[in-house]
Amino acid sequence: MKILIANRGEIAVRIMRACRDLGYTSVAVYSDRDREALHTRYADEAVYIGPTPASQSYLNIDAVLAAARKTKADAIHPGYGFLSENPLFAQKVEKAGIIFIGPSPEAIALTGDKLEARKIAAQAGVPVLPGSEFSLADGGVPKEIGTDIGYPVLVKAVSGGGGRGIRLADSDEELLRMVGSASQEAELAFGDDKVYIEKFVRPARHIEVQILGDGNGNILVIGERECSIQRRHQKLIEEAPAPGLDKEVRARLYEAARQVGLALNYRSLGTVEFLLAENQNFYFIEVNPRIQVEHPITELVTGIDLVNTQILLAASGCLTLQQDQIQMRGTAIEARVIAEDPDQSFMPTSGQVSYLKIPSGSGIRVDSALYQGMYISTDYDSLIAKLIVWGEDRATAIRRMLGALEEFNIAGLTTDLGYLRDIVRSEAFLSGQVDTMYLESFQTTDSSEDEEKLLKETALAAALFIHNKLKQTAARVTREANQWRTAAWREQMVGFY
Amino acid sequence: MKILIANRGEIAVRIMRACRDLGYTSVAVYSDRDREALHTRYADEAVYIGPTPASQSYLNIDAVLAAARKTKADAIHPGYGFLSENPLFAQKVEKAGIIFIGPSPEAIALTGDKLEARKIAAQAGVPVLPGSEFSLADGGVPKEIGTDIGYPVLVKAVSGGGGRGIRLADSDEELLRMVGSASQEAELAFGDDKVYIEKFVRPARHIEVQILGDGNGNILVIGERECSIQRRHQKLIEEAPAPGLDKEVRARLYEAARQVGLALNYRSLGTVEFLLAENQNFYFIEVNPRIQVEHPITELVTGIDLVNTQILLAASGCLTLQQDQIQMRGTAIEARVIAEDPDQSFMPTSGQVSYLKIPSGSGIRVDSALYQGMYISTDYDSLIAKLIVWGEDRATAIRRMLGALEEFNIAGLTTDLGYLRDIVRSEAFLSGQVDTMYLESFQTTDSSEDEEKLLKETALAAALFIHNKLKQTAARVTREANQWRTAAWREQMVGFY
Repeated sequence: MKILIANRGEIAVRIMRACRDLGYTSVAVYSDRDREALHTRYADEAVYIGPTPASQSYLNIDAVLAAARKTKADAIHPGYGFLSENPLFAQKVEKAGIIFIGPSPEAIALTGDKLEARKIAAQAGVPVLPGSEFSLADGGVPKEIGTDIGYPVLVKAVSGGGGRGIRLADSDEELLRMVGSASQEAELAFGDDKVYIEKFVRPARHIEVQILGDGNGNILVIGERECSIQRRHQKLIEEAPAPGLDKEVRARLYEAARQVGLALNYRSLGTVEFLLAENQNFYFIEVNPRIQVEHPITELVTGIDLVNTQILLAASGCLTLQQDQIQMRGTAIEARVIAEDPDQSFMPTSGQVSYLKIPSGSGIRVDSALYQGMYISTDYDSLIAKLIVWGEDRATAIRRMLGALEEFNIAGLTTDLGYLRDIVRSEAFLSGQVDTMYLESFQTTDSSEDEEKLLKETALAAALFIHNKLKQTAARVTREANQWRTAAWREQMVGFY
Repeated sequence: MKILIANRGEIAVRIMRACRDLGYTSVAVYSDRDREALHTRYADEAVYIGPTPASQSYLNIDAVLAAARKTKADAIHPGYGFLSENPLFAQKVEKAGIIFIGPSPEAIALTGDKLEARKIAAQAGVPVLPGSEFSLADGGVPKEIGTDIGYPVLVKAVSGGGGRGIRLADSDEELLRMVGSASQEAELAFGDDKVYIEKFVRPARHIEVQILGDGNGNILVIGERECSIQRRHQKLIEEAPAPGLDKEVRARLYEAARQVGLALNYRSLGTVEFLLAENQNFYFIEVNPRIQVEHPITELVTGIDLVNTQILLAASGCLTLQQDQIQMRGTAIEARVIAEDPDQSFMPTSGQVSYLKIPSGSGIRVDSALYQGMYISTDYDSLIAKLIVWGEDRATAIRRMLGALEEFNIAGLTTDLGYLRDIVRSEAFLSGQVDTMYLESFQTTDSSEDEEKLLKETALAAALFIHNKLKQTAARVTREANQWRTAAWREQMVGFY
């Protein structure tokens, strides 16, 4: 079995390792920029498919298909992004007699049309938010706004995805403006300017359910993920299971996801996304018809290798896993390490990795395509690594995450590592009380960085004086805390057990 | 809770991470050589305890105790090696009012005397090999050799451990010579020249059972490990569970280990080692009264963090885990990455790590204290990293191990990475048919290295000719294999499921 991986970066390496696990041959495709990339080097074979701009390589259907034909690949895994949600690509792959490791082209098309997906979910008895198709050409604001929708509303691209083409509007005037700008972004990003509006619920949590179907009416539910920590509709930290989720609500979410899967006669891995309102009502958002960035947290709590399972399912057509074999244990958290500058409005950064230290050890996993000496450009997605931890309980997982974030060292370019640490240390995260708008008002409180700035900005002598005072105070506080801890320790332990 | 870690290298880092997981403060101790070591840098506090030679630092009881007093440590974790099996150290730690994270000094003393441990096991109804105490001063060969022992025999140090002071003898003459040399090595290594002889069983597998006791008569059995892949009585590759182990034999091994634990009223983590003969009879070898190098494979198949559990047990005195919560899933394999030269009789190597690439991803874990720029000296144990993989089944685990060994890149010094790969690829390993003498006759068959040598040794032109011929043949064989694979693929898949 030979599998061509039509992707790059961490997900290409991750799929390649899955091929290796299964004893299958892997084929990489690469652009000019990726001649030395890990995915190019780790594959059994590698085919050059075009210049650096994705449109001329990773998004070029003909070039990818030519590479598959040339290497006589039996199957193509699209990863996420790029061609993974392009029904035409899936169709052409299957027409060429090659297995497409993903859903049917029809299911991809249906889930790609966000309005269509809403209809399917609603027909399956799954709650959707009040909403309506909307176009500036319709002239004026639709009357549903005044009746069953009401402000605030989200403007979303019909062919959207990845958080792009989404706008918030609070009034008629803002709505008209936002529809204009969302349409424009949608046209640029997806070649389709159609948008729709949907009631905006806040506070709400983003909870998604992993499904796996065989395309013959069998749908498995493989746990849920909490993905409320988002910046501008982009997930940053994910967790499984969703902390504090009511057991009965979880069961209803799973059933809703299963019904959506059944309605689509779904094949392969997919994710059904929901918004969970404060009153515990939930609403279908969309289906992501491909392996999800945050899939490793599900792997760590269930012990199921999703990519291996997905590939074997595509190869055989049969599900061997059974619903009652799927159980979650402990807590897993993923933090996305991104080449961006939190102090510069999260602008993407670039640079050569001059030193790299990747955390490791019990309960720690890193999925990345990083290597020392690698040049990180802004040509592609700025996600450069995923730090994933598992702990027997949530507190252990969080402490493990904090320790691993400390150990992680990427020199040569700015990343969000410090920002991630600040979020994980925040009260709201620690208590599991986050909603999708949490990061919008989040302020980093990095005292060590503040100290550093102070040293630079003031005269050295004065700074050192302050620094030493702080140190003395910190030492005293630590000492007192330790005394308290030692005294309270045996009692604590009894409580712990 | 503040824990001083009386160790260095990968195990010190591993214990430090456990402290962090639990929210405890860690204290490192370090020698001159280890000023920049990861364990020194990762700890919350670090105390210099003396010059590089271990006798003046990591083996210096007073220096370690002084560091514990100075930092007001509540507990000491000894790791493995160094002071971990020194009953005097454990005693002094407890006398100083500090928790010793390990067994009682009495249990350490009993298990440290290998003859005494044999007696305890035998009294507990656990089979031991025919054997006898023996000293050159006794004059001549003991008469038991002629009666119930018989050649071949192993000569072992009474105060032995770690495979040192062990000799094989096949005749009276050889026995007398080996007793002399084993006594000498034992005197140097353990300060005790006493040896004993034990019937040597071959072929036999080395299988050990992980136990955890609370010192109040409760003993848990946490699975077994296959450790037959040894070079000169030093484990190199370990696996959990033991492949192909008969269910009933496994149950009897567990019960035997439990009986040994009960007889010692064992506290903390311990390992009961057995030899399993071809006829499925097994024999007690010894008890290792400390965390074992190969503990991570047990962690991966059971999902239990042994070091966290060990620390929490020492802190509270109570076991919270129950026997029926312990289950093994999948297969885990550990390979020891050692700074040594397989082509130079496995001589320890040294050098500065000029480039480092550590494998990562689904089912892959690396425990190490490696970092790029680190100088690896021959002052300490040559184990520099442990590569541990988990797979849903043994075949997946093995392929994952091979892939990870390929990805592992340590430049700047010679290691056994290639040698490990050769072992894992060998027929005997793949089929799980190995015994403790397997490596003694193992020949590496690294064709790429052979080819390289060929190129150097013959004229370039001739070599290239041969090389190309080989390549053509390899390409043809691969092509034919692929054709066969593609054709047989659907049938294969049906069989796979």
